[in-house]
Amino acid sequence: MHRFFIPKEWFENDKVKITDDPLYQIGYVLRLKPTDRIIVLDNSGWEFEVELEWLTKKEAQGKVISKKPGKGEPVVKITLYQALLKSDRFELALQKCVELGITAIVPFISERCVIKNPSGSKMERWQKIIREAAEQSERSILPTLHSVVSFEEACDTANKPALLLWEEENSKGLKQILQNPPLKTAKTISLFIGPEGGFHESEVKLAQKHGIAIASLGHRILRAETAGLAAVSAILYEKDEME
Amino acid sequence: MHRFFIPKEWFENDKVKITDDPLYQIGYVLRLKPTDRIIVLDNSGWEFEVELEWLTKKEAQGKVISKKPGKGEPVVKITLYQALLKSDRFELALQKCVELGITAIVPFISERCVIKNPSGSKMERWQKIIREAAEQSERSILPTLHSVVSFEEACDTANKPALLLWEEENSKGLKQILQNPPLKTAKTISLFIGPEGGFHESEVKLAQKHGIAIASLGHRILRAETAGLAAVSAILYEKDEME
Repeated sequence: MHRFFIPKEWFENDKVKITDDPLYQIGYVLRLKPTDRIIVLDNSGWEFEVELEWLTKKEAQGKVISKKPGKGEPVVKITLYQALLKSDRFELALQKCVELGITAIVPFISERCVIKNPSGSKMERWQKIIREAAEQSERSILPTLHSVVSFEEACDTANKPALLLWEEENSKGLKQILQNPPLKTAKTISLFIGPEGGFHESEVKLAQKHGIAIASLGHRILRAETAGLAAVSAILYEKDEME
Repeated sequence: MHRFFIPKEWFENDKVKITDDPLYQIGYVLRLKPTDRIIVLDNSGWEFEVELEWLTKKEAQGKVISKKPGKGEPVVKITLYQALLKSDRFELALQKCVELGITAIVPFISERCVIKNPSGSKMERWQKIIREAAEQSERSILPTLHSVVSFEEACDTANKPALLLWEEENSKGLKQILQNPPLKTAKTISLFIGPEGGFHESEVKLAQKHGIAIASLGHRILRAETAGLAAVSAILYEKDEME
């Protein structure tokens, strides 16, 4: 069944009113009809099975048939701190990491970022990518998109424990970090991924000062947009979220 | 330093002759000059540091300065059996899985594949994507691209142990499969990833008959091109290849 995140305000007792983009998807793209069923999500963690009652060009109404707790949310909450990347790479990282199971994303600007000033419309576009990836992968909570911050601000405000991936060889491996305190028992993890040109050494030092652990991802040199996917997959695997 | 896979025949004692696409990259794209250095790889696992001596429009010559064993190859050899996907998705899976560290790829056609007849020029294009991803990620052996086969043929010829990812809930989790025999000690793994519409139940049964283990990737429903990345990341993490 097709899934749609909608605002809580669209519910009234056991009825749901649907407009805007979800209506466009339901009426025009999928051409659903009265008596067809969909899943709607109000970002509470519950999934509502809804039977469509009527559709017009401006609005549709459905009736809630049943509700159950969503199964798509990992217990471990990963916040991805992702350096801005060239547009398509950033969007790929965003889409894939939401599918895999991150809880929040904080875009940041560091020294070697090629993109330093994302336009205002980007946030809207990223929000749409997040919503669609969350619907597609059967998440029941919409990952939060935070405003773009500087790397310094990200280091300062990130919840600990936090982890930064760096391709230089001196750093510890990801498994060593994840299987030892404080990451071993952590239920929230902040994960830092750099831009195309990597982190500057001074940035790695700054992160360490803020108590952020530095980890290597192995001998292959991964592109910036691949590193996040690999690390999120490995963390979820380690935390028994791929069962 | 920039890296290039070249044929063994281009070596003669301590000299290397360079033509074709690597020459185009070196001379036109990167505009390298005599005395500049590059890494060349002859697919033996060794890396050769080469100083350019001269370049013309048709050929360049370099001198081998030193050689050392490459570090980019995982001990565990993963062969990715990937169902054909829509063009851009298949190419994304190919590029990312080569970066992560697969050893070979076998494209296959299963019941729900949208694409059933890739054109001949596709193989050449895929080969180029593999080479570029291997150079970029500092691999020292070029992953092998096999011809497209049917799902039945893939099941029949795949080296065991083998693993097929399926989104249906009854199957065991990936970790349970990887941490128990025969996968636990395996140095070669065949990994099966389905098409956009997933595997048909009869295909899963056929795989089981061939001794292929069935595993789930968790509660999120991953797109076909994401499932491979997640599984390859998890396998390499489990096998201590992300250190």
